[in-house]
Amino acid sequence: MDESTGSTNLHATEHEALQFERLVFFSDAVFAIAITLLVIEVKVPVFGSHDAGTPVVTVEVLQKAWPHEFLKLLPKLIGYVFSFLVIGQYWIIHHRNFGIIRRQNRRLLWLNLLFLMAVAFIPFTTGFYSEYLYWSTALSWYAANIAIVGIMQWTMWRYASKNHRLIDPRTSINQIRQISMIHLAVPIAFGLAFVGGLFGIPFGMGITWIMIPIISRIAKKKYPYTTR
Amino acid sequence: MDESTGSTNLHATEHEALQFERLVFFSDAVFAIAITLLVIEVKVPVFGSHDAGTPVVTVEVLQKAWPHEFLKLLPKLIGYVFSFLVIGQYWIIHHRNFGIIRRQNRRLLWLNLLFLMAVAFIPFTTGFYSEYLYWSTALSWYAANIAIVGIMQWTMWRYASKNHRLIDPRTSINQIRQISMIHLAVPIAFGLAFVGGLFGIPFGMGITWIMIPIISRIAKKKYPYTTR
Amino acid sequence: MDESTGSTNLHATEHEALQFERLVFFSDAVFAIAITLLVIEVKVPVFGSHDAGTPVVTVEVLQKAWPHEFLKLLPKLIGYVFSFLVIGQYWIIHHRNFGIIRRQNRRLLWLNLLFLMAVAFIPFTTGFYSEYLYWSTALSWYAANIAIVGIMQWTMWRYASKNHRLIDPRTSINQIRQISMIHLAVPIAFGLAFVGGLFGIPFGMGITWIMIPIISRIAKKKYPYTTR
Amino acid sequence: MDESTGSTNLHATEHEALQFERLVFFSDAVFAIAITLLVIEVKVPVFGSHDAGTPVVTVEVLQKAWPHEFLKLLPKLIGYVFSFLVIGQYWIIHHRNFGIIRRQNRRLLWLNLLFLMAVAFIPFTTGFYSEYLYWSTALSWYAANIAIVGIMQWTMWRYASKNHRLIDPRTSINQIRQISMIHLAVPIAFGLAFVGGLFGIPFGMGITWIMIPIISRIAKKKYPYTTR
Repeated sequence: MDESTGSTNLHATEHEALQFERLVFFSDAVFAIAITLLVIEVKVPVFGSHDAGTPVVTVEVLQKAWPHEFLKLLPKLIGYVFSFLVIGQYWIIHHRNFGIIRRQNRRLLWLNLLFLMAVAFIPFTTGFYSEYLYWSTALSWYAANIAIVGIMQWTMWRYASKNHRLIDPRTSINQIRQISMIHLAVPIAFGLAFVGGLFGIPFGMGITWIMIPIISRIAKKKYPYTTR
Repeated sequence: MDESTGSTNLHATEHEALQFERLVFFSDAVFAIAITLLVIEVKVPVFGSHDAGTPVVTVEVLQKAWPHEFLKLLPKLIGYVFSFLVIGQYWIIHHRNFGIIRRQNRRLLWLNLLFLMAVAFIPFTTGFYSEYLYWSTALSWYAANIAIVGIMQWTMWRYASKNHRLIDPRTSINQIRQISMIHLAVPIAFGLAFVGGLFGIPFGMGITWIMIPIISRIAKKKYPYTTR
Repeated sequence: MDESTGSTNLHATEHEALQFERLVFFSDAVFAIAITLLVIEVKVPVFGSHDAGTPVVTVEVLQKAWPHEFLKLLPKLIGYVFSFLVIGQYWIIHHRNFGIIRRQNRRLLWLNLLFLMAVAFIPFTTGFYSEYLYWSTALSWYAANIAIVGIMQWTMWRYASKNHRLIDPRTSINQIRQISMIHLAVPIAFGLAFVGGLFGIPFGMGITWIMIPIISRIAKKKYPYTTR
Repeated sequence: MDESTGSTNLHATEHEALQFERLVFFSDAVFAIAITLLVIEVKVPVFGSHDAGTPVVTVEVLQKAWPHEFLKLLPKLIGYVFSFLVIGQYWIIHHRNFGIIRRQNRRLLWLNLLFLMAVAFIPFTTGFYSEYLYWSTALSWYAANIAIVGIMQWTMWRYASKNHRLIDPRTSINQIRQISMIHLAVPIAFGLAFVGGLFGIPFGMGITWIMIPIISRIAKKKYPYTTR
């Protein structure tokens, strides 16, 4: 009978709080893994062949090959930093939204799961884009991925906030609307980059990027609110 | 004596709650990792050789090779989406069940561990199946894996719910039975796909898939209950 | 001033509880990742070459090569299951111990970190052993790794339980001693396997394995106790 | 209407505590993944070619090739142990600091994210350095990475502790200053190693290492304090 050890009894309300926490912590874990997996795409440069019989590469060879290898590494580094910030930004928005959302239901779980499916896919599109960053198709995939994450987050917020369905009842209408509109900034910017990519414009992202602060500013002007 | 910093004292009941939370959060972490590792099987397409001396692949070459490479990528994408939904579905069921389970013991820890062993194996069988999706053996492995996850989850639920051993005492018999029966929907559907795979029917999964909503509907009809 | 959002104020005692929880959840995350990374060593079999120009492998070729490929896969599968159970067992012991440990200090953090360093290394030694399981050197590495994990866990328990330093004051001396002794069962069994490996006995593990239940039984006889 | 299941209602203050916990647990998850990913760089040695047609490598061949392979493995092992301790040390400092920090705001979230970006990059620089440890450029990257982590942690602490902005109001000025100064020990030591690397001194790290205990001792002398 060694199974009589360590039984636990939780109060019902505590238990319901735990259910909400699980949703949040599971999301955090997926975010954390996706953001950390980005580093796997940054591969240690291999100089020459490394088979069993090969002698160690000399420093001279390394130094000579380094400028070339570094140039190949550079887009990976940029991709790492950029996607880390993008996923981080989405995490911060998720963190802010779930500071307002108070309750969960089955549909929110599913919407959140679809949102996470898009987040967890970013390491792939980042790797793809930073491998072929001069190729507009790779850009399109990357931009589409990031836009879809934003659209999913917007959908989730819309569902939770509609008629204060799952959110803090004290939330003002303006706050709900401002958040909704800011959610669309990233999808619009990257949606335009995606369209640019389809038309073969690889560096379109640089231009569309400017949409994000503009939309955020409009949203803040149009739907002002003050937090207590 | 720099070890005198930061000592903590938890109340006994809080501590017992922590023990239950650990079981739940450890499971969530394994789920989150397994679901995020799926993306590792979706590999960035490699066009031509990428050795040190090779010049960069031109956009023309990429465009020309893309249709072929995309077709090779497609099953991986489908595998990613499909397995993400399967693991996500199992997570949601785990989440629901542990909203009813109130206590843990040593045997539940072990049953949960065996369940997680099957969950964590899904990235492998997904990769295997999406690499050779026209081959019935690969299908069999995939279908068997998913069926085993379901059987383990059913076993865990049966153990926890029998005579209300570890669950909320207010749970009705009908709720227990409905949950038990719905648990069997996925194993039956994928068990049939597995058998089909053994007989060399690679696309059997499409047909057996229909079992899941049917069994769920029967369970809801046969064991109706209302949540407070 | 968009940083005025979402400030939080925690009570001091709650905050101290959070410090303890962090130690526990950080450990759980490392356990969860180590246990899930095991699946990465189980690689999807590659039949023939998969370069850009190669036609798809036919089902006939797959079927013919399968028995050979399966035999190469089998030790990986066994290694996955076995190491999953070993890490799972250590997690359950960690879970049990930290159900008795009530406080943390800096030294416990470090001992736990060294323990986790050994746990997180198991995916490597598992991969090594299951690649060359007929080679006694690979066995030695694997057995030594598992033994070191056990020794670290024993050390951590000894430190925490000595004079009830960090544990629940109600814990009986017999319980402390029984746990200590059972901790040594795995290190002794795998330490013997390690020594066997040094002398070129690759299957020694099967014989030493028997030590674990024997030592556990002696410990339970010698230091009996009943939980409330 | 199967979405009426499992709705949750959290008290406002509990909810604010959850927001702080998320910051902490998300950081823990990134730490845990970064520290566990280190093992991925320690690759199982491959003896000879492993293609489909190749016969199994005999024990004699393995034994003969082992000394050579072990020497290639050794730096990876050292890199694993060393970087595990470095990340672990940073985790312990993070754990200590967030035992004093009581509140969060948007800027702290971002500073923490930049800190984690540097932490999550360590598996790459560890892999790079342990592959070419006789090459001063690889050392520079590694040393710079670790120094940047330390600088980010110092920045975060400075921001949170300035005028007791986000920390426990009972924290003494001396404690704040001592912690600030100790934070600089690792960046200074590794900054010097980085500069040494630029001048082609690969083993500079061994010499600069000594700075860490010296700076810590000065800090403890200069800003003494006692914890309650």
